[in-house]
Amino acid sequence: MPIRFSGRASEAYHYPLLLRHLLHRPLAISPSQHIVYRNQFRCTYAGLRERLGRLASGLASRGVEAGTTVAVMDWDSHRYLECYFGVPMMGAVLQTVNVRLSPGEIAYTLDHAHAEVLLVHHEFLPLLAGIREQLPALRTVVLIADGASDLTIPEWIDDEYEALLARSTPDFAFTDFDENAVATTFYTTGTTGVPKGVCFSHRQLVLHTLAVMAAGGGAPHGQGMRSDDVYMPLTPMFHVHAWGNPYVATLLGIKQVYPGRYVPGEILALRQHEGVTYSHCVPTILQMLLSEAVASGGDLRGWKICIGGSALSTGLAREALDRGIDIYAGYGMSETGPALTVSCLTSAPGSLPVEAEIERRCRTGAPIPLVDLRIVDDKGQPLPHDDRASGEIVVRAPWLTQCYVGNAPASEELWRGGYLHTQDVARIDPDGYVQITDRTKDIIKTGGEWLSSIQIEDIVSRHPEVAAVAVIAVRDAKWGERPHVLVVPRPGHAESLTGDAIRAWIAAAATAGTIPRYAVPERVTFVDSLARTSVGKINKRALREQYG
Amino acid sequence: MPIRFSGRASEAYHYPLLLRHLLHRPLAISPSQHIVYRNQFRCTYAGLRERLGRLASGLASRGVEAGTTVAVMDWDSHRYLECYFGVPMMGAVLQTVNVRLSPGEIAYTLDHAHAEVLLVHHEFLPLLAGIREQLPALRTVVLIADGASDLTIPEWIDDEYEALLARSTPDFAFTDFDENAVATTFYTTGTTGVPKGVCFSHRQLVLHTLAVMAAGGGAPHGQGMRSDDVYMPLTPMFHVHAWGNPYVATLLGIKQVYPGRYVPGEILALRQHEGVTYSHCVPTILQMLLSEAVASGGDLRGWKICIGGSALSTGLAREALDRGIDIYAGYGMSETGPALTVSCLTSAPGSLPVEAEIERRCRTGAPIPLVDLRIVDDKGQPLPHDDRASGEIVVRAPWLTQCYVGNAPASEELWRGGYLHTQDVARIDPDGYVQITDRTKDIIKTGGEWLSSIQIEDIVSRHPEVAAVAVIAVRDAKWGERPHVLVVPRPGHAESLTGDAIRAWIAAAATAGTIPRYAVPERVTFVDSLARTSVGKINKRALREQYG
Repeated sequence: MPIRFSGRASEAYHYPLLLRHLLHRPLAISPSQHIVYRNQFRCTYAGLRERLGRLASGLASRGVEAGTTVAVMDWDSHRYLECYFGVPMMGAVLQTVNVRLSPGEIAYTLDHAHAEVLLVHHEFLPLLAGIREQLPALRTVVLIADGASDLTIPEWIDDEYEALLARSTPDFAFTDFDENAVATTFYTTGTTGVPKGVCFSHRQLVLHTLAVMAAGGGAPHGQGMRSDDVYMPLTPMFHVHAWGNPYVATLLGIKQVYPGRYVPGEILALRQHEGVTYSHCVPTILQMLLSEAVASGGDLRGWKICIGGSALSTGLAREALDRGIDIYAGYGMSETGPALTVSCLTSAPGSLPVEAEIERRCRTGAPIPLVDLRIVDDKGQPLPHDDRASGEIVVRAPWLTQCYVGNAPASEELWRGGYLHTQDVARIDPDGYVQITDRTKDIIKTGGEWLSSIQIEDIVSRHPEVAAVAVIAVRDAKWGERPHVLVVPRPGHAESLTGDAIRAWIAAAATAGTIPRYAVPERVTFVDSLARTSVGKINKRALREQYG
Repeated sequence: MPIRFSGRASEAYHYPLLLRHLLHRPLAISPSQHIVYRNQFRCTYAGLRERLGRLASGLASRGVEAGTTVAVMDWDSHRYLECYFGVPMMGAVLQTVNVRLSPGEIAYTLDHAHAEVLLVHHEFLPLLAGIREQLPALRTVVLIADGASDLTIPEWIDDEYEALLARSTPDFAFTDFDENAVATTFYTTGTTGVPKGVCFSHRQLVLHTLAVMAAGGGAPHGQGMRSDDVYMPLTPMFHVHAWGNPYVATLLGIKQVYPGRYVPGEILALRQHEGVTYSHCVPTILQMLLSEAVASGGDLRGWKICIGGSALSTGLAREALDRGIDIYAGYGMSETGPALTVSCLTSAPGSLPVEAEIERRCRTGAPIPLVDLRIVDDKGQPLPHDDRASGEIVVRAPWLTQCYVGNAPASEELWRGGYLHTQDVARIDPDGYVQITDRTKDIIKTGGEWLSSIQIEDIVSRHPEVAAVAVIAVRDAKWGERPHVLVVPRPGHAESLTGDAIRAWIAAAATAGTIPRYAVPERVTFVDSLARTSVGKINKRALREQYG
């Protein structure tokens, strides 16, 4: 800084971007607003602040200090929200453990992250008993009894969550420190090898929170979270900070509702009872909720739901809209913190033809503030925004993981050329709206052309007798690769639906010009279900192994 | 960072918070959206980006480099917006010159900021001619001809703005650098001594932009700026970055309309023609616009206006609401970048009793994200949010000036105790809504009690025959200080309005319990006008000298 801008009083002005500073506003404007866990627990924001102090004091009494990894295995709860803030606010690192991984993978991630303290819901005690011996760094296990009174508590349990808080003081002295300190870590299961760790700093999470709140609030016609919404996550809190939304909801100071383990009937009842207006989930969960609502006659009007994790098909979007859900898509990944784009409407609902509105809601979305998103060709050169040119999405933003933890070669590959490589292939329209057409690994290369498996899936998803669909590439002597369409029929249609009907449906789309003629597949297979990943996405890798 | 979080690929991930990164999103989503200057100029965001390149190339050809101060003397224009981005994006420092200061003060600020390059609108050439000899550092003067063709151009003019852009390449290589580099500087006229310089870094301006966009967007019921708004500033762009709104409007990618020199009739015509929906100004400007609309029959419906700079009186707010303006208050100051609070409604307009809604709209507002705002007693101890306890507002946020430039003692005083001292006295209600009751210097200390000059002004402002009012403290042998009420009658009421009528009006408020009985003043003086500061605020210092 040039000498003429001297005159600074001291370091007093310095304000690091720390998670604890997200709390100033809600504690001022919403001290009496509620945080709810099922029908079991309810506290105010003022009460949350007190519990954060107790949590930090309690963990400190258990030896947690700056840099200690504290792992959590819990369902979505107020406790998880407390850990989102309380653990990083004391300088420690929160590891959110994916409880849907195999025991071996969970052991690997806990060991790799050097977790010294583990907060574990009683439902996972049997699992933990089986892997505990593989965790030499683990020295303190805190049970989350979750109100259960008849538990058989193993002798290696050191404490209980509510007991720890009850006996600890709320007056923990949270202080400022380097905003680049790691706040959270978790593991992503790629298509090959062991799970890979990503990590995020306080600065990154604060900037992500501001950008998501700004992007959502900037949307003029529904969508996004605002200060009169009631929030409930339906993406597990172990999964990329529930897409960052609990931090946004807290900054907004709005009512938050945590549903525990996801049970569709209970979710709909809780939503009704607490007046939930904003949620987010993967398509699979939305499909389950819609089915439950059909079965139970539940009313879903007035619910904004942001879909991510997998493409939002136009068929599913239409079903949701028909039930009164304000449905739209977002995009991101574990490595990106996650939010990159969101597909808010830029004109009032109903002002576009219905097909065009659904198409807009289902697009991958437009970049949120500070996101520098490009599609590039094989040489890394940017491609035009003409909705035709197709290339890999590469991205820069202030909240992308700096590395795969302890894995410099994979990190170099992720960040080659100074942009994070998503392995997603997309086109971009002149309004900046991205449309992912495939994963780089899932593209079907047939007869020298690229064919989008997602596009075929979207077309088939609209067939009235189709419940779910996945398209994979299979080797073909003549064409290189050809699409193989795997279909789950709707209940009652397993007998009537035929491969020829599916082929005719795709051929009609080809005649209409929405997909090339060579997309009509030779192979259509009917299956009872599709393999899913631990977070509910269709597992193409497993399907390729099974049907490729 | 602990060793286990190693594995970083390189510095590639690093993303500094620079103003140029605000442009990624609008250039993707709004390349064809318009930026308008009166009826004289119109370009797209894509065109803006090209002009930023030309401006930087042109300035570089004139020797501007990282750290050079480039000063601007212009009315509100697309050129000013270009300087907001283009000058800091090349690492140089933008000085926004308050053209309403005296020539001597302007010379002082240009010299103090070491301005080497000055972009000057032709209307200020006579002024500049008179002070040019006092500016040894100034080596390049670029004329802003603003379309005028009959100018007599002095021989010491080196270039012309549009000519400079026309002959320069758009391909300037903007690069990343330290986010803490100073981006802007300007001078604030305090109550004593010479103007004091403040400065803001790229990081500070980016964070301010995100927080203002998030706060505005988070408001569920009107207010704030969204992506379907059309923006026009009515706070001069030399004044605290027009409260940061041009940066927010750009990040939103919305249409922007710049009105040049403020002429009420032209402003209303421009608003009508371009469909402006969001503006911000001081109460004086709003009063002028309302008078103009009354005179011309102009329609002001569908216009959101954020009021700052001085308190929004309930009388003025009611007038604005009656004309269909969505009026509300914000708060900040030159030293704070400026936004600290905003007074958005938390329930739908019309859902509160009208008096309560107006009271909420007129409050100083609730803290925006990351703002740590307290009221403290004389010992610096925080006071409760009970809407009764009254103390000085002290604040921390990531975008407050680090210093008064080159003035360490004043900086120490500003930042004593690690919080920026605003010299505003306020109370805070349980919803976190601040209500400023006075400046520390304007409080009337009478008979051992504190009396709010602003509160008396608000009551008098509601009298139907009052056009403007100011209350100052005058010395009193018995009580220490007493209020002196200065009133500008409405046109046609100069004869009829009496001091007794004003006293009776205040006494009625005291009977109703809204103000203490001892607020009823002995002295009421009728005046033709009230002294104003360069930015249109009532100048209490001058009034005290005149009437104290």
